[in-house]
Amino acid sequence: MAENAPDSLWQPVKKARAHELVIEAIEDRILSGALQVGDALPPERDLSTSLEVSRAGVREAVRVLEAQGVLRSQPGAGATAGTFVAALPRDALTRFLRLHVALSNFTIQDVTDARVVLERASAASASRRHDDTARSRMVEALDRMDQPHSSRDSFNEADTQFHLAIAEASGSALSAALTAAIRSAMKVPILRAAERTEEWPDEAQRLRREHRAIYAAIDEGDPARAADLTEAHIRRAASVLFGLESPDSRA
Amino acid sequence: MAENAPDSLWQPVKKARAHELVIEAIEDRILSGALQVGDALPPERDLSTSLEVSRAGVREAVRVLEAQGVLRSQPGAGATAGTFVAALPRDALTRFLRLHVALSNFTIQDVTDARVVLERASAASASRRHDDTARSRMVEALDRMDQPHSSRDSFNEADTQFHLAIAEASGSALSAALTAAIRSAMKVPILRAAERTEEWPDEAQRLRREHRAIYAAIDEGDPARAADLTEAHIRRAASVLFGLESPDSRA
Repeated sequence: MAENAPDSLWQPVKKARAHELVIEAIEDRILSGALQVGDALPPERDLSTSLEVSRAGVREAVRVLEAQGVLRSQPGAGATAGTFVAALPRDALTRFLRLHVALSNFTIQDVTDARVVLERASAASASRRHDDTARSRMVEALDRMDQPHSSRDSFNEADTQFHLAIAEASGSALSAALTAAIRSAMKVPILRAAERTEEWPDEAQRLRREHRAIYAAIDEGDPARAADLTEAHIRRAASVLFGLESPDSRA
Repeated sequence: MAENAPDSLWQPVKKARAHELVIEAIEDRILSGALQVGDALPPERDLSTSLEVSRAGVREAVRVLEAQGVLRSQPGAGATAGTFVAALPRDALTRFLRLHVALSNFTIQDVTDARVVLERASAASASRRHDDTARSRMVEALDRMDQPHSSRDSFNEADTQFHLAIAEASGSALSAALTAAIRSAMKVPILRAAERTEEWPDEAQRLRREHRAIYAAIDEGDPARAADLTEAHIRRAASVLFGLESPDSRA
């Protein structure tokens, strides 16, 4: 049988590339707990020697892990220079989702559904907790949306801030990071859709009213109402801005 | 006043590094829609010339975007060789979350709370839809967990599969990707905790029973029960494996 084996049985084995081996080595040490936040990595030269990989390979690996918010490089010489294990996941997550939303790897409908799941939970949780700082940030965002001559851009900025403040107030770091990343990833598509919307003043007025109602439910400590108003708001806005099925037309 | 301005007013401006400029250039084209899934990037040499950046800088940028599942490089020569815009977000998301969970940038409590939010929604949604393929995958995973001599490792593997099948059945790509990434990121911590648990046979038995009950609720099309059983299961298991507050002790 082996004699008659077609060539396709003998595909080339996938060679791991130098930088992938370095990433794997660093990841293994993080997953085992040997490398922790704040720890310094050995200098590029030393890593290159110990792992028997070119310095370019080490540098590429460091770039990849920097972009994921796992490492942070401080240029220059002296005690503070070097590459450290960092803890900056949120920006990395936002960039990641923004690109994949732009590539339509996740559709607007997918993103809307995920937002509803996460933001219902955040709004309910924010209603149960009493985070005064987060509440003042919500009020500040609402007030900014009320300014009569605000551009669509600055309205959108304040709108994003309102949703982020609710996510922060939920008290759950991962849910908040995911919510923030998804809302931030939607900032540009939402702004573009707002720019296309001819009846923007009316729509802005509706958005203000919905946000105020959500805030009132959170402030009064009514989790069920806060969650329902949040879902209705996200779905209605998506139906106006992106032409998704509105809540009323859903079965 | 300017004369007396302290030196701290004149911090060095942050220089963007070569690879960051290349990443930004590629991201801009993706965000504007000029680059789409399947499109080829110009050869490294050409990009290096047009962007006036070293070839090393271009290569580092490509590595970063490959790791985010946005680009895919095919080595060699010929029509299929080169760097293309790809659509492989899930593995990248899993790696990302796995590292940040390992670094405790998200605590087990945070991850458990996020799992509850996402998996309640997935289980409810899976109960409403009739995805026969996903349901057979659930049954297959349940059967594998029933094998009497399965190791903790292969039990954990089947357990992960069960939760992923529910996420798939939810019909929402981003929620499914997030659920899958979070459950996969928890695979190693869950396995380690299982290895430390002295009463593993009893715990495995409870996990089997809980999974069967969740499946029954999904199969009978009972979204509310499927969601509640999923939350109870995740919180109880987290209390046994990680010593988190159990649902009963929560206010």
